[in-house]
Amino acid sequence: MVFVKVYVTYKESVLDPQGEAVKGALHRMGYSEIEEVRIGKYFEMQVNPGTRPLEEVIEEACDQLLANVNMETYRFEIVNTEEA
Amino acid sequence: MVFVKVYVTYKESVLDPQGEAVKGALHRMGYSEIEEVRIGKYFEMQVNPGTRPLEEVIEEACDQLLANVNMETYRFEIVNTEEA
Repeated sequence: MVFVKVYVTYKESVLDPQGEAVKGALHRMGYSEIEEVRIGKYFEMQVNPGTRPLEEVIEEACDQLLANVNMETYRFEIVNTEEA
Repeated sequence: MVFVKVYVTYKESVLDPQGEAVKGALHRMGYSEIEEVRIGKYFEMQVNPGTRPLEEVIEEACDQLLANVNMETYRFEIVNTEEA
């Protein structure tokens, strides 16, 4: 079993209104040090590799479901459960 | 300016229905290798450290706003923008 972490974030060029809202809330709470917030999604997956290369499976799953590739970008890390 | 990454995930004991739904969708799409999915939030922040220690500020912001500490757990990484 392999542990995979996927990070999905908006592309730099895409506005992140949820991040702006969190930044505003942080400022109202006194955390003015935090000057910029961007919010993404984080997926932790347990994968039981089959015959296809794991990287290929994960990339395809990201492209088709986990990320909206028009607006978002993703990266992933493959970690053995032993090391996780 | 310091770059901070915060990961917020459900505690192990808390069910993640959104993760279950994504797992179901992945299986229907043929990615049966992916046996378990848990979804979290991921925050990228640009912070301009003030007089207070940065770790203290980030922990407080997580406890008060970014994570629901009853159900969620968080961890963060502090990265210099030069290294990011």
